[in-house]
Amino acid sequence: MTIASPQAPTGILARRARVLSPTYRLFYDQPLQLVRAAGVWMYDQHGRAYLDAYNNVPVVGHCHPHVVEALARQARILNTHTRYLAEQPLELAEKLLATMPGELANVVFTCTGSESNDLAVRVSKAVTGGTGFIITDFSYHGVTDVLSGMSPEDGAALGPGVYAVPSPAGPGGPQAFGRHVAECLERMRRDGVSLAALLVDTIFSSDGVYADPKGFLAEAVRHVQAAGGLFIADEVQPGFGRLGESMWGFQRHGVVPDLVTMGKPMGNGHPVAALAARPEILARFARRRHYFNTFGGNSVSCAAALAVLEVIRSEKLLANAARTGAHLMRGLRALAAGTSAIGEVRGAGLFLGVELRANPVSGLAGSAEVKRVVNGMCRRGVLIGSTGRGGDVLKIRAPLTLETQHADVLLEALGQTLASAD
Amino acid sequence: MTIASPQAPTGILARRARVLSPTYRLFYDQPLQLVRAAGVWMYDQHGRAYLDAYNNVPVVGHCHPHVVEALARQARILNTHTRYLAEQPLELAEKLLATMPGELANVVFTCTGSESNDLAVRVSKAVTGGTGFIITDFSYHGVTDVLSGMSPEDGAALGPGVYAVPSPAGPGGPQAFGRHVAECLERMRRDGVSLAALLVDTIFSSDGVYADPKGFLAEAVRHVQAAGGLFIADEVQPGFGRLGESMWGFQRHGVVPDLVTMGKPMGNGHPVAALAARPEILARFARRRHYFNTFGGNSVSCAAALAVLEVIRSEKLLANAARTGAHLMRGLRALAAGTSAIGEVRGAGLFLGVELRANPVSGLAGSAEVKRVVNGMCRRGVLIGSTGRGGDVLKIRAPLTLETQHADVLLEALGQTLASAD
Repeated sequence: MTIASPQAPTGILARRARVLSPTYRLFYDQPLQLVRAAGVWMYDQHGRAYLDAYNNVPVVGHCHPHVVEALARQARILNTHTRYLAEQPLELAEKLLATMPGELANVVFTCTGSESNDLAVRVSKAVTGGTGFIITDFSYHGVTDVLSGMSPEDGAALGPGVYAVPSPAGPGGPQAFGRHVAECLERMRRDGVSLAALLVDTIFSSDGVYADPKGFLAEAVRHVQAAGGLFIADEVQPGFGRLGESMWGFQRHGVVPDLVTMGKPMGNGHPVAALAARPEILARFARRRHYFNTFGGNSVSCAAALAVLEVIRSEKLLANAARTGAHLMRGLRALAAGTSAIGEVRGAGLFLGVELRANPVSGLAGSAEVKRVVNGMCRRGVLIGSTGRGGDVLKIRAPLTLETQHADVLLEALGQTLASAD
Repeated sequence: MTIASPQAPTGILARRARVLSPTYRLFYDQPLQLVRAAGVWMYDQHGRAYLDAYNNVPVVGHCHPHVVEALARQARILNTHTRYLAEQPLELAEKLLATMPGELANVVFTCTGSESNDLAVRVSKAVTGGTGFIITDFSYHGVTDVLSGMSPEDGAALGPGVYAVPSPAGPGGPQAFGRHVAECLERMRRDGVSLAALLVDTIFSSDGVYADPKGFLAEAVRHVQAAGGLFIADEVQPGFGRLGESMWGFQRHGVVPDLVTMGKPMGNGHPVAALAARPEILARFARRRHYFNTFGGNSVSCAAALAVLEVIRSEKLLANAARTGAHLMRGLRALAAGTSAIGEVRGAGLFLGVELRANPVSGLAGSAEVKRVVNGMCRRGVLIGSTGRGGDVLKIRAPLTLETQHADVLLEALGQTLASAD
């Protein structure tokens, strides 16, 4: 998925290479130039439509009019910060907390999932006095300096005090996760590292998408909390109804986190994010530190996020994600029954992972086959991605407005791609 | 400036205390509830107008119609990320770079000044192999974990490898800054700490606002670059024309930074920020790391930032900031001539610091007098803030659309406040 193709629009690629940092990467062998989007569809400069089954940021569909109008209306009236009193951040905090267990009763607003996870790390260190963090061994939690040391997917070395345990993709699978965490706590004790927190993406997205069996996270959380550490649920990807049955991924596991971080879909594309917490934890943090995020909780960001919550409710998108997700899962398993190229199909709601194996038609396997399929799907007008340590899992993560007829478009394109050699 | 007053609207304060983190702080003894804003004016729930001479985020004036319409227009069409090709981030990068010396030729987009500074720190460490950072002793650079250790204003301990030097507020004043940095480099060599970067807010905002003499930063930058370190210009507060003569604070000092961070005013309230850099530095970083910021460089954020640049140019706001700033400076110095309560008046363009001394009328001095004046100004309908290690400096930092008649409103209110005992 690098800049590669001679057929790609050279003017824009040349400008990009000139002014943007070489740290940027484009999707697809033939990078897409997208010029508009609506609902589950994105359109390139030639007017060609692509079904978006990858982007979870536009959670209520691209350019949803209710969100756009809320944003525009508030931007015309006032956009200011939390050092003045205002309705918007309070209403947003109240409505967010209403979707969570009662123990989670305070909110801090930030602008990105990275800022939320970074703050959760700061709070955990300050409140526990510990410096030790447990993460999974191919996790991704964000782009800041401290989070890059907690994001092995990104290729950086683990930060000081950071311990990586086998994810549910590892030995023993999801059922062994509690044991891996218990053993890690023992190792930390031997190393003299005092525990701060367990930080987990509750859908294990970069590890390869692991949702089942429900509740498999609970044992690990019990071990950590018993050892005096905090449990940070990273809901940046699974949050906001993506898993279909509840607003938050941790709810699938019957656990109550100490800190919950959220971001990506919260404003349907607008940069807004948050940290929800048990108030006694933030009270302890507040004894030593204030926290002011200039844009966090600004009037317009709150208006956008409120509109997203309203659409999720009014359009019954959790139920839709569960229904369309189940349809998609059945279709994927039906496809799998007809080819040895598909291994396990995992996930929940509209976050699915499809493990690929050796494909006798293409002669490819693993990440090479996944790359071929992701690019082949794009040529067929369907956007999906890849994930997992081996890069051998298709990542399907559509807007929650995806309907069964859209799922059928995806299934047909996937069937064709798997049955083709190019 | 804490939640204090029994006359404040109790309903909203009670809701705030219930759902928001106790890490939040409100401005003013009588917290303001603001409900709309336009240009340099903000309005409370009773319709009372306040002249905004504090907020630098709404750099082209609150709710500027050109920015609002650009935001709304783009939000209706497309809001997506930098892994697809798009015009908006390229056009924004091109226009930003056109305001800078030619050596600065690549851009990375983020969402907040904190994310930009955090990335500058990551890049500096990776590219130099060093871990040592030099900052000023009451600086503020952001809210992330690593930046909290580089923000002594926030009260946290310095992070590992972080050295604080006396700011221009310290012994020897601005002219001694180069020497302080040279001595620090010597100390780091003795300590065996290898240099990564000098990180400086080019207006020394939290240190108390130091703009003159022009060029006083140059010696420090020479020492650091000669020692193999990078110079990071933190332009989050001084950038975007605030100092009146040029777009960036570093230009006042005739230096070319290795990395330039920007944020707050970039989207006039919309969360958009960036890092500009010498391309050879990002090329070295890119050999080890990619960097993807989900919302960084999204279509709508870019549209907002482009509109801000357009308004700065079309309304000739640099010239206005220089003209109104000079008028304000003259007025403040005239006030100072008539009272012993005002010490030094510093700054450039529309970023001014007014040091207060013992006021014979109020019987107060230092931070107590500054608090009284800031609250008294608010009661008189003018919003300003405070800064400096001793909290004894008034911070005046209005939208760049402030005109001389607005400056006169501020000067009259300040004169009245200083001449009053409450």
